[in-house]
Amino acid sequence: MDTTQAPSLDAKQIRAMASGIRFLSMDAVEKANSGHPGMPLGMSDAATVLFSQFMKFDAKRPHWPDRDRFVLSAGHGSMLLYSLLHLTGYEDFTIDELKRFRQLGSKAAGHPEFGEGAGIETTTGPLGQGLATAVGMALGEKILRERFGEELVSHYTYTIAGDGCFMEGVSQEAISLAGHLKLNKLIVLWDDNRITIDGATDITTSDDLAARVQASGWATSAVDGHDPEAVAAAIEAARRSDKPTLIACRTTIGYGAGKKAGTSGVHGSPIGAEGIAFAREHFEWAHEPFVLPDVVTDFWKAVGTRGAAEADAWEKRLAASAHADAWKTIMADGFDGDAAAILADVKAKFASDAASVATRKASQTVIEALVAKSAKLIGGSADLTGSNLTKAGAMKPVTATDASGNYIYYGVREHGMAAVMNGLSLHGGFTPFGGTFLCFSDYARPAMRLSALMHQPVVYVMTHDSIGQGEDGPTHQPIEHLASLRAMPNMLVMRPADGVETAECWEAALVNTKSPTTLVLSRQNLKALRTGSVGENLSAKGGYVLVEAEGGARQVTILATGSEVEIAVAAQKLLTESGVRAAVVSLPCWELFAKQPKSYREEVLGSAPRIAVEAASPFGWTRFVEEEDDVVGLPGFGASAPGGDLYKHFGLTPEKVAEKARAKVGA
Amino acid sequence: MDTTQAPSLDAKQIRAMASGIRFLSMDAVEKANSGHPGMPLGMSDAATVLFSQFMKFDAKRPHWPDRDRFVLSAGHGSMLLYSLLHLTGYEDFTIDELKRFRQLGSKAAGHPEFGEGAGIETTTGPLGQGLATAVGMALGEKILRERFGEELVSHYTYTIAGDGCFMEGVSQEAISLAGHLKLNKLIVLWDDNRITIDGATDITTSDDLAARVQASGWATSAVDGHDPEAVAAAIEAARRSDKPTLIACRTTIGYGAGKKAGTSGVHGSPIGAEGIAFAREHFEWAHEPFVLPDVVTDFWKAVGTRGAAEADAWEKRLAASAHADAWKTIMADGFDGDAAAILADVKAKFASDAASVATRKASQTVIEALVAKSAKLIGGSADLTGSNLTKAGAMKPVTATDASGNYIYYGVREHGMAAVMNGLSLHGGFTPFGGTFLCFSDYARPAMRLSALMHQPVVYVMTHDSIGQGEDGPTHQPIEHLASLRAMPNMLVMRPADGVETAECWEAALVNTKSPTTLVLSRQNLKALRTGSVGENLSAKGGYVLVEAEGGARQVTILATGSEVEIAVAAQKLLTESGVRAAVVSLPCWELFAKQPKSYREEVLGSAPRIAVEAASPFGWTRFVEEEDDVVGLPGFGASAPGGDLYKHFGLTPEKVAEKARAKVGA
Repeated sequence: MDTTQAPSLDAKQIRAMASGIRFLSMDAVEKANSGHPGMPLGMSDAATVLFSQFMKFDAKRPHWPDRDRFVLSAGHGSMLLYSLLHLTGYEDFTIDELKRFRQLGSKAAGHPEFGEGAGIETTTGPLGQGLATAVGMALGEKILRERFGEELVSHYTYTIAGDGCFMEGVSQEAISLAGHLKLNKLIVLWDDNRITIDGATDITTSDDLAARVQASGWATSAVDGHDPEAVAAAIEAARRSDKPTLIACRTTIGYGAGKKAGTSGVHGSPIGAEGIAFAREHFEWAHEPFVLPDVVTDFWKAVGTRGAAEADAWEKRLAASAHADAWKTIMADGFDGDAAAILADVKAKFASDAASVATRKASQTVIEALVAKSAKLIGGSADLTGSNLTKAGAMKPVTATDASGNYIYYGVREHGMAAVMNGLSLHGGFTPFGGTFLCFSDYARPAMRLSALMHQPVVYVMTHDSIGQGEDGPTHQPIEHLASLRAMPNMLVMRPADGVETAECWEAALVNTKSPTTLVLSRQNLKALRTGSVGENLSAKGGYVLVEAEGGARQVTILATGSEVEIAVAAQKLLTESGVRAAVVSLPCWELFAKQPKSYREEVLGSAPRIAVEAASPFGWTRFVEEEDDVVGLPGFGASAPGGDLYKHFGLTPEKVAEKARAKVGA
Repeated sequence: MDTTQAPSLDAKQIRAMASGIRFLSMDAVEKANSGHPGMPLGMSDAATVLFSQFMKFDAKRPHWPDRDRFVLSAGHGSMLLYSLLHLTGYEDFTIDELKRFRQLGSKAAGHPEFGEGAGIETTTGPLGQGLATAVGMALGEKILRERFGEELVSHYTYTIAGDGCFMEGVSQEAISLAGHLKLNKLIVLWDDNRITIDGATDITTSDDLAARVQASGWATSAVDGHDPEAVAAAIEAARRSDKPTLIACRTTIGYGAGKKAGTSGVHGSPIGAEGIAFAREHFEWAHEPFVLPDVVTDFWKAVGTRGAAEADAWEKRLAASAHADAWKTIMADGFDGDAAAILADVKAKFASDAASVATRKASQTVIEALVAKSAKLIGGSADLTGSNLTKAGAMKPVTATDASGNYIYYGVREHGMAAVMNGLSLHGGFTPFGGTFLCFSDYARPAMRLSALMHQPVVYVMTHDSIGQGEDGPTHQPIEHLASLRAMPNMLVMRPADGVETAECWEAALVNTKSPTTLVLSRQNLKALRTGSVGENLSAKGGYVLVEAEGGARQVTILATGSEVEIAVAAQKLLTESGVRAAVVSLPCWELFAKQPKSYREEVLGSAPRIAVEAASPFGWTRFVEEEDDVVGLPGFGASAPGGDLYKHFGLTPEKVAEKARAKVGA
């Protein structure tokens, strides 16, 4: 239910309000002597129209779930956003905070950082990400609207994107998906200023962008971005469209900044005294830096409080709704269930059956159990559903005409998928997971980094995690991917060794609500190692002693993860037979292991010499072993052959592991 | 000069030749019990038309520079390519090799692997890469044609791409660039079979692909992919177009394979006995597996030798050409100059001036010197020319209407840039380098991995390499990127510490012709450390003692790279003042250091305790130090503030380094 009545539009008033943004932006960039004034100057007219006439929000309740979302995809223009948040009364963005733009500890960081201040819906700056994340938010709205009705869910997702956003491939992936799923409440204002850093856009692109997005099922319009009435009419039309809409706002970058206006010179550098003086004259603005006339601040304050009544009404509707409990459950932080309880039976069955299973298959069993008890889980795959095994039988695809499902066919769009999952997670109401081959995590990496930076508990289901995938060859065989993901701050990388560990890792992923998780899963069957009774979640400790040395103190400890743990176990048997006392430590998650008390870590790792086995680059393993030569691993790329042949070819065998262990202890 | 006369087209003959591809593909996949038969079956008619009527090549001279290029972007359909190479007489692809499809050591690997056998122009499989690489090849042709004339350079680049290729964002980046630069000799056959792994394409896309690429300046046509005359007419028209062309070949995936035809079931699994029996009947093919009738092999052999006369004529033209020497120089492997000699003056000047300089700026000075002496270097940036400093003054942009330049404005398309650079390098005649911020290497990573896998000496100029970039904040500050690139096999990662080291690293990059290089460069000024006389290229050893301990044996060794070497040097002074004997080791390239003799490495690293300082994740540093705590680094994400403030905030200071060193040695 969208009952917002836009106040009538007064061109002079809009211009004054826009000037408020303009001067705050110019002043902050000037004071910081760093930043991007060009975009805020160019888009302040359109942004003023959007916020004053259309945006549904209450600055005092920035987390109101049915607010319209605003994503500044062209994140370098962050002062546009900070100015809007300040002027409309978001508490985190005081004038003092704006004066500290780009200084240590300021919520007004160089680019908008989710979590730094309420009102920033997502972190932007890496181009294209904001737009693709906004697609996820709009998708989230569509799904929840279907489930809960317009009474509780009916909001728009607005985005301002620049030429750079559209040049990045991820935006086309997201645009295609948005058009396909008819996300008609997604409205993108394109800052069509025809300038990028290197100069005029005509040195790098001849795209007819409107035609390009129309080809992906979008509506488009084109307006003078400095004409408030035209912008308002375009947004009005976009809100009625049955497709997502791109509004090309023809603007002048650095509008009003004198000689530099309309050039790349105003994109990413302070305007300077001369330009500011010009602007003060041009916009008849006789105020000191960071000082705004009351008439402007009053206009904006009214905008910032206008949504309060509607937010109140929404709260009442929620209180009276039959869906109230369900709503609160899914909108609370974290997974909407007790993962340990849900998975207890699954773990017990894996342990008692003791059957070999690919961890991707075990993951599917886990997903089956979770989906049956969760309204938040929303799955998907980048066109590898049957390989990633990300779809439980009960999961239903989300389509353009029926958004009641909980599975997204993302197409061959790993990067778009990751960004859309960020959007779903940020929107609220979802615990997204999505699959591809681990090797193609490279495609998704920029968005995975944003999951980590924004502390979003997105679960990446990355299968075919080594040369064990076999015949597809080196292009499909991850080597450096484990190391490269382990190096990423705040990313949990989990590589379970069997069915029980897979369930444990999924559980740990859902319990850790402030980190994304990459689940690294095998294509091939793996032996059951954790058989018999299942006690505490050992994988959640990151590492543990799976097999202790027999008959005395350890002479050597073999560390392993995932599919190589069974090789370590077999090597341990060989060593025992030949009189060497070896222990096997499973290390499914290095990051969680690092969080354990030192005493626990020392106990697990032991003081005996260590070797490791992992079908991946040994890079990084020196955290646990003396040198990379102590790792039975893969320093180079893989090859095309059946997986079993490759393991033998590359020496990933119990015999070679035992040999290395013996050499290490001089046995 | 393209004088190929296509033989007249005989529908029955084409059908028989296509059947040769079909059955080899089916048989090989069946024998391997692994592979993707659907695409070869669907596209064999169109591929037969292309190869028999249009492709200019001589199977006995696979490296003839003026051959048409053929890129199988849908690399999973590798048996289509191997069948074509076998049938037309490429020596590497014997029938025995095809029988060993997807087996260890076979040139007929799961996906086409560049370098495994002559005739494979590029490694494909990761979707979208082939198409984007083909854009680079077509661009290379256009540039060399401009420089050398049609007498020596006049060839087409043909690509077969599938739906997955077009869903990947990288393809749109490359398509936009190809349209912008009017690469009219690029012709893409789209296997429009409307099937991907997850099912019909209509579950994931509603794109009007023809309209989408038209919007990017392409010509398009649509034909029945099983109608040879229609395909031939479309290719003929495409060859005359002044734009790149997309030919939508409407096909049935797994054409002729019985019940599975037209479904995703035939995409990536063997067809099975029943399907093959159906096909044998359907195509009236009464031959044993891997056996072809003479009439078919004869047709194909004629195709494979037809180009010999033209290749002969070309060789004669080259011999007579005034450009012959210049041509041979650029087409030889590696850089077309003596990098050490060219850079001697530059190094000497850096050493004698001893001025502070940002390594990105030093890199520009190096580029200036190299460009003056090289016809192979071709630079560019993903819209950060003025920041990456990748453009020498004498460099001239390549445009649609004037391809005589040596600089590409790639637009905000890091991924497309990397793939295009691979294409330029594979084409021959170029040593490509291209810039972006190190943080955005994530966007380019899948193509960077292919540079490494294919041993292409592409140079990635990655600037703004740490929190030193300052106010842009954590989205723009690399943390895990050094580790993630160091983990990649066959990628040289070089992070120079000053002007001299920058020149040395560039030199090492150009000398190493079998590896790509990532140059990791600072935004901020760095002190000159290698002053006075310049001797051998120390950076080419990967690491060396920059400052030896004074007054006795080392008590501690401080390792550092890039911008942190000057911090290590300052810390060493503090330590010396307080009576601790410390040495400083600069480690600009870990990969080259690893290649040094053990004795050298031990001598450099010393036996004293070690600590390290690097403004990046400490992940991986345990190769050199005991534990990650011995690294003054950045375990988490950065922040937005002036770079100097961030260094202090995160403790990257001489004082902290000295403190850690003292703690380490108990001083």
